[in-house]
Amino acid sequence: MRLSRLGPLGHEIPVVIQDDATFDLTSVTDDLDATFWETDGIDRVRSALEEGTLPLVPDADSRRTGAPLTKPGTIVCVGMNYAAHAAESGSEPPEIPVIFFKAANTIAGPNDPVTIPRGSTKTDWEVELGIVIGRRASYLDSAEESIDHVAGFVVANDLSERAFQLEVSGGQWSKGKIAPGFSPLGPWIVTPDEVEHQNLRLRSWVNGEIRQDSTTADQIFDVATVIHHLSQYMVLDPGDVILTGTPEGVALSGRFPYLAPGDVVELEIEGLGRQRQDVVAYEALR
Amino acid sequence: MRLSRLGPLGHEIPVVIQDDATFDLTSVTDDLDATFWETDGIDRVRSALEEGTLPLVPDADSRRTGAPLTKPGTIVCVGMNYAAHAAESGSEPPEIPVIFFKAANTIAGPNDPVTIPRGSTKTDWEVELGIVIGRRASYLDSAEESIDHVAGFVVANDLSERAFQLEVSGGQWSKGKIAPGFSPLGPWIVTPDEVEHQNLRLRSWVNGEIRQDSTTADQIFDVATVIHHLSQYMVLDPGDVILTGTPEGVALSGRFPYLAPGDVVELEIEGLGRQRQDVVAYEALR
Repeated sequence: MRLSRLGPLGHEIPVVIQDDATFDLTSVTDDLDATFWETDGIDRVRSALEEGTLPLVPDADSRRTGAPLTKPGTIVCVGMNYAAHAAESGSEPPEIPVIFFKAANTIAGPNDPVTIPRGSTKTDWEVELGIVIGRRASYLDSAEESIDHVAGFVVANDLSERAFQLEVSGGQWSKGKIAPGFSPLGPWIVTPDEVEHQNLRLRSWVNGEIRQDSTTADQIFDVATVIHHLSQYMVLDPGDVILTGTPEGVALSGRFPYLAPGDVVELEIEGLGRQRQDVVAYEALR
Repeated sequence: MRLSRLGPLGHEIPVVIQDDATFDLTSVTDDLDATFWETDGIDRVRSALEEGTLPLVPDADSRRTGAPLTKPGTIVCVGMNYAAHAAESGSEPPEIPVIFFKAANTIAGPNDPVTIPRGSTKTDWEVELGIVIGRRASYLDSAEESIDHVAGFVVANDLSERAFQLEVSGGQWSKGKIAPGFSPLGPWIVTPDEVEHQNLRLRSWVNGEIRQDSTTADQIFDVATVIHHLSQYMVLDPGDVILTGTPEGVALSGRFPYLAPGDVVELEIEGLGRQRQDVVAYEALR
């Protein structure tokens, strides 16, 4: 199942996409938020689809695609989770998951413009497999239990300002991860039954040139391990988002220039859809 | 003005305390959350108090005190913001604010038991001045503007598991800051007009013995500077919480033992009230 949200920022409606048809979910739920997952939202959508009672969204293609979820309790990120990216960042691969947080108000739609933050000279892209939590996870006994707690998967751009993250941060990375719009998510949440989440090609491009081209098979800590590990340290609640780390091919490596106004960033994960973002100057939005 | 929330966990009602009287705010707002601050909640409470229309809560003293806010967008923390605490932690005082995040689902009432996380041997206390944001702050032009964005101040215990934070974290502190119940807040949100926020004595005790005894005058980066600085890197939204760092006198210093089941932690900030927490083993709650 593919869930999404369509409409102007702050006024999106929840939808489900089946084959090429987009159905309006407002009769099932107000939004794709914690309450939706806590109240067996997926089951209710499935029933409504079977009953054939959901109205079509006739002009779906002409509407803005929003992030496919809203108001997560938190966004937790795994750092350096691909060995080649750790190497290009000048680090050893970690022996235990390294985690940090993004502020939830950084979420943006998958095709919204990316604004270079004020004072930024090192804005960087990071294509990542995102996990949306569907069921509370606390002190899980084993990694095998993890997938039962997943609502679905999503494409994420974990935008990062490297000077803010590494040069004026005292070593705590979050300062470079929280600028407005720095977490484009979507276009869809795809339920776990529809993808082999540990075998997905993930790619990014800048101005049509390939930057990242890897597979989630290369993750140091796989999805199940990450969720199990996090659950030993925190409670993961329905609607929470986990970003599972980026593979090699970012500007921090020194191999590519950082983003500049006029650039176009594209990101794609097999089975999870594609994002396209115009990069704009901070001043352009004032 | 002093705002609070009374009642069982998840079923608290918002209240305002004036002199020794506690008034029920449910006619003014559903809860003390982002919506309350965004819709001029303080002004509406003030009007209701003047009109004398609010019902008294007759049994206020016998009810549990909850955290005085719910569902913040984020909890952002300033690390090493008192020189003597940086020294006891083995660090130089920072030259720029160092920030990290706590998950919002760590919030607890000021007198709820503190659970030692599973596998923890280094659970530590941290009394901190907390800021509640009342108005959106983004790219503020000067520190002078900061206080206009503050809804109020609150006592916080920034509970920390030092092994999780420093030994199994890859250097990113949040892993030791996010265990269930690790952010007791309250008893009250006190509006800025009622306290000299940069001249408040803040103390903590374990089993009646003093541990921390400092003043917010000793902060390296004061409240106005912290808000201004954060606003250059992120959007601070109404209801967001900032914890402004802890002074010296924590167990990490090596001068005191870490917390153990049976201990009692107390924390107080002048004018903002007092917390009292029984420390319990993880197993006790299963």
